[in-house]
Amino acid sequence: MAVQVGILGATGAVGQRFIQLLEDHPTFELAAVTASESSAGKTYGEAAKWRVNTPIPDDVASMEVTRTTPEAVSDDVDLLFSSLPSSVAAEVEPDFLDAGYVVSSNSSNDRMAPDVPLTIPEINPGHLDLIEVQRDERGWDGALVKNPNCSTITMVPTLAALDQFGLDRVHVTTLQAVSGAGYDGVTSMEIIDNAIPHIGGEEEKMETESRKLLGSFDGAEVALHDAEVNASCNRIPTLDGHLESVFADLEDDASPEDVAAAMREYPGVDLPSAPEQLIHVFEDNYRPQPRLDRDRGDGMQISAGAIQATEGGVKYNCLAHNTIRGAAGASVLNGELLVEEGWI
Amino acid sequence: MAVQVGILGATGAVGQRFIQLLEDHPTFELAAVTASESSAGKTYGEAAKWRVNTPIPDDVASMEVTRTTPEAVSDDVDLLFSSLPSSVAAEVEPDFLDAGYVVSSNSSNDRMAPDVPLTIPEINPGHLDLIEVQRDERGWDGALVKNPNCSTITMVPTLAALDQFGLDRVHVTTLQAVSGAGYDGVTSMEIIDNAIPHIGGEEEKMETESRKLLGSFDGAEVALHDAEVNASCNRIPTLDGHLESVFADLEDDASPEDVAAAMREYPGVDLPSAPEQLIHVFEDNYRPQPRLDRDRGDGMQISAGAIQATEGGVKYNCLAHNTIRGAAGASVLNGELLVEEGWI
Amino acid sequence: MAVQVGILGATGAVGQRFIQLLEDHPTFELAAVTASESSAGKTYGEAAKWRVNTPIPDDVASMEVTRTTPEAVSDDVDLLFSSLPSSVAAEVEPDFLDAGYVVSSNSSNDRMAPDVPLTIPEINPGHLDLIEVQRDERGWDGALVKNPNCSTITMVPTLAALDQFGLDRVHVTTLQAVSGAGYDGVTSMEIIDNAIPHIGGEEEKMETESRKLLGSFDGAEVALHDAEVNASCNRIPTLDGHLESVFADLEDDASPEDVAAAMREYPGVDLPSAPEQLIHVFEDNYRPQPRLDRDRGDGMQISAGAIQATEGGVKYNCLAHNTIRGAAGASVLNGELLVEEGWI
Amino acid sequence: MAVQVGILGATGAVGQRFIQLLEDHPTFELAAVTASESSAGKTYGEAAKWRVNTPIPDDVASMEVTRTTPEAVSDDVDLLFSSLPSSVAAEVEPDFLDAGYVVSSNSSNDRMAPDVPLTIPEINPGHLDLIEVQRDERGWDGALVKNPNCSTITMVPTLAALDQFGLDRVHVTTLQAVSGAGYDGVTSMEIIDNAIPHIGGEEEKMETESRKLLGSFDGAEVALHDAEVNASCNRIPTLDGHLESVFADLEDDASPEDVAAAMREYPGVDLPSAPEQLIHVFEDNYRPQPRLDRDRGDGMQISAGAIQATEGGVKYNCLAHNTIRGAAGASVLNGELLVEEGWI
Repeated sequence: MAVQVGILGATGAVGQRFIQLLEDHPTFELAAVTASESSAGKTYGEAAKWRVNTPIPDDVASMEVTRTTPEAVSDDVDLLFSSLPSSVAAEVEPDFLDAGYVVSSNSSNDRMAPDVPLTIPEINPGHLDLIEVQRDERGWDGALVKNPNCSTITMVPTLAALDQFGLDRVHVTTLQAVSGAGYDGVTSMEIIDNAIPHIGGEEEKMETESRKLLGSFDGAEVALHDAEVNASCNRIPTLDGHLESVFADLEDDASPEDVAAAMREYPGVDLPSAPEQLIHVFEDNYRPQPRLDRDRGDGMQISAGAIQATEGGVKYNCLAHNTIRGAAGASVLNGELLVEEGWI
Repeated sequence: MAVQVGILGATGAVGQRFIQLLEDHPTFELAAVTASESSAGKTYGEAAKWRVNTPIPDDVASMEVTRTTPEAVSDDVDLLFSSLPSSVAAEVEPDFLDAGYVVSSNSSNDRMAPDVPLTIPEINPGHLDLIEVQRDERGWDGALVKNPNCSTITMVPTLAALDQFGLDRVHVTTLQAVSGAGYDGVTSMEIIDNAIPHIGGEEEKMETESRKLLGSFDGAEVALHDAEVNASCNRIPTLDGHLESVFADLEDDASPEDVAAAMREYPGVDLPSAPEQLIHVFEDNYRPQPRLDRDRGDGMQISAGAIQATEGGVKYNCLAHNTIRGAAGASVLNGELLVEEGWI
Repeated sequence: MAVQVGILGATGAVGQRFIQLLEDHPTFELAAVTASESSAGKTYGEAAKWRVNTPIPDDVASMEVTRTTPEAVSDDVDLLFSSLPSSVAAEVEPDFLDAGYVVSSNSSNDRMAPDVPLTIPEINPGHLDLIEVQRDERGWDGALVKNPNCSTITMVPTLAALDQFGLDRVHVTTLQAVSGAGYDGVTSMEIIDNAIPHIGGEEEKMETESRKLLGSFDGAEVALHDAEVNASCNRIPTLDGHLESVFADLEDDASPEDVAAAMREYPGVDLPSAPEQLIHVFEDNYRPQPRLDRDRGDGMQISAGAIQATEGGVKYNCLAHNTIRGAAGASVLNGELLVEEGWI
Repeated sequence: MAVQVGILGATGAVGQRFIQLLEDHPTFELAAVTASESSAGKTYGEAAKWRVNTPIPDDVASMEVTRTTPEAVSDDVDLLFSSLPSSVAAEVEPDFLDAGYVVSSNSSNDRMAPDVPLTIPEINPGHLDLIEVQRDERGWDGALVKNPNCSTITMVPTLAALDQFGLDRVHVTTLQAVSGAGYDGVTSMEIIDNAIPHIGGEEEKMETESRKLLGSFDGAEVALHDAEVNASCNRIPTLDGHLESVFADLEDDASPEDVAAAMREYPGVDLPSAPEQLIHVFEDNYRPQPRLDRDRGDGMQISAGAIQATEGGVKYNCLAHNTIRGAAGASVLNGELLVEEGWI
């Protein structure tokens, strides 16, 4: 039985990825695309400057773009994916929640709000029950679920696998792709033969979101994991795929082989967009590499490699496709979990 | 009074940088260029595939390339710079030392040998006295001095500035330029739209060389600094300039402002190739960037930026030109120190 | 009924593309992989440094690599694809032809030999009958067919479509991808933030091969097309996909619309690897672009765009995937034609 | 005796190049910088986002930015350089001309106007006398001189050198750097691992401006050169330096050696910013290359190479620095010519 879904902010880079991922989706059927005032009334084909590497689906191209208000979206729609700029999302998402919609949002606002589940289905599906708290506190009929930042989601599955060894302190440095800044976010004059340190806001997101994702939920609130996370975020001249170098201090002894096994065996979930294996660990220490490995598992698998012992724990590299697993794919997967768990 | 110098391995990428840096040098006069058997007897212009961005000096172009043996080099030469591949250097350098030459070498062999000074003039000039130990033990008339790896030298000046606050634990991740692997070291198919983790051997060099450079010398041996250094080394699509993200735990309290001041005030040296200020600290957190900042101080200055507090200390980024300050320029500066200290 | 095929020079970049294209091929079954002496006896997985963006097929990985001699290849093999370096091919291919093998070769030797068909199935399938001439003259039991250079094949289909308007004079400038030079052919130091003009030998190949492909065959020999072709070939920092700017003088009047129609309607062939439509013409003048359009038709379609009138004819841009349509895919397609036409 | 100069549109990319080139200029002294309404009243350091690779001069940083009107610019200023967007320039430049200013403009408006000199000092200095015509017709007290587009100026000096052999028909394809589109003109998502054909408007500029530059002036009007110029313009992932492949039909016989000699011997001019030799011809056919050769002659020299015979003439490659010789440097050189010729 198909679930009717809509996309808030459908014409942007992440919006286009949503459309690509929803084409041929087994249970979701795209029924609404919204954008800003200036695009409303046009067909999607007219309104969007299509830049994804697969052709725009014919039925989507002819779909009418509406304004981003509850009134403009059909009541038949059960689930909304949001890729609105966070400042817009902060204003608009509450209207949809008041109107009873379930929203799976990639926007960064409210990710750390105590009553908003920040969820990766393989990591903390139980946090979804924060929706009860959320409804109590906010009086919403709908439900709001967030997925983390692209740089956070690349690392957190590997940390979750390490947590059995007593995750203590983390130092992570990212080498992030330009697509993470949006289509126009990084000019060619800035990045050719160059790298740009200290991506704005990114370091704090990694340091806080990670601890919420790994935190424990007692039915009322999420206690942040007490690991200390320190992040440095850098932009490099790659198109897609964030590569991250992680140093993790562990309370217990764990050899690189133990850690590799823990990552490989970390359980996945049985949802349509989930990869069969959550984390692929390479034997070859020179992998993962962004261009070669970002498309593993249709862009939804996490890769890791070069796991080595340090005095206090281990160091390793990890990688994920930042606009699939790190953005649109993350929201779609959360949407699938919401259906599976009966929230829709 | 000019010092006659020679270059061992003069035709390679670092060899060419030596020639560029020695052109118009106030005290060094290039008098000998050596290369492998197949180049011996040719003029330098014939033997070298010149790729540096300034024209090959006319007098060097017409200089005859000799074999890399003490017999082939004139006795008038007082100082040799070595950019031989480390396996070749390990075989050949001892012959020159037996023959009484002073060798300032960029090759990685013997850097950690207890009786070989590994030196950055601004950081540990006193280690040069290991030459006495070296002569005693090896019976050499000459003297061998090494400079550290390009990734090491980018970070160590900033760590030296931090040491007054009790340097404890370091986690560093590098974003290294392709020139660090030599002219043919990284193919375009490997690196366009990509990054390559875990550069072979580089991590261990950073972890060990740093501790020797920061170590204390009692006249007989160098005690390694007891800081723990953990490194992850990555190659990215930049031509020159290594950018590094450093997390440093400090025993004492030090604010980012204290750290910035310590870096800015770290004393330089009065040698011809040394920058006026050793470390430039940017106010702009988005700097240093490889393309914009690698040429500061004619490629000899270290840059730092985005200094911020962490729970245990500070994090920041630093940068240096890897084939100037990180290779040929480092050896030339050591040569200038050798002259200054009377070893030549 | 499957045709048993082999690959001569299977471990190189084009050899790996052959393996990728032959996986799941409807009629070809890979039965032999050859390489140089040093690889013989190893499994393919051990011998090849696999770099293609799909995993190495399991059955190929365990296949034994043999030497590149007729004796080492099973008699059950009917068709050989050759991606040997041209100097090696010039020596070795005749041995296979003497031994009765049919060889579809991507190597550049003998392309302009009067008795060797140089073929693109959609353009000049009839030239295959040169095999009769070839057998007469050389006494071979086998048959040798060549496909053109990657830069030639990108342009020739568009010229063939123009020939109905009296193709007269051609000026073409290429913007070629680094993969055209082989995996190690262009170093990153050469090409980042750069372009390299005058690719060795490439200009002459375009100027001569084009005229043979478009020439007429009278059953005995191919008369070169009398169009004059002038080529300038440049390397740019793209991974795959050659973009070419063509100016074509035409004897007859032809509007850009006429030319677009002629290209769109140029007939394809009904072979497994052929695209449905040979030439895709974009309405958008800013296309084709290498990264966006090289994979059209699984890398086998030619793209064109920005067709505009000049005083003497038209100008336009065209593009093809250089290692698929321009190399391995071209040979596979020729192999399919050989089967279809009953030569195997 | 210093000439006081001003820059219209001083904060943009070309404006910044003007400031860089005017620093330490022997005769020009920067006395006015104008920008849009929103920048007026700020210091230049506050108003401009400085991105040039040399530090902003201190005295310029503290200079007050004014509005772009004649009233806002001091009467002491004798010469204005304009790097305004062409739509703004079309409105504003006439006001300055009415007010009696001499304007050396890089903006593309009015380049083909019959009474506006389009000038390269080494090529057609005599065209400057169109100023008389211009003053008659427009009633201006000032004078307006334009320099050509960056893609045009790269090729025209080489064509001028060929003209002695009867320049007939030209086919040129460009490989242009991203800086030609302005700092934000090309996003990294558009150009990494890619090329973009058919740069908007560029082809027509090359086809028309070339003929005016090479045209003859009889004291009343410029007769366009009757050569036919056909251009295809492409963007590639280089930062600076346009590389162009030219095919030139010649009426007379001329060997590649004749052509090389004609280029090398083409006379330069004795102006402060002019290179000693206008065109450098490489012996090495693989040059010029953008990154290696764009800075020759402080970015003011044209390079050429790979000159080869075709049936109707010659083909070759040429290169110039697009934001120096192709923009700000071109205007400065025209300014120097205006002074030399007594127009100021």
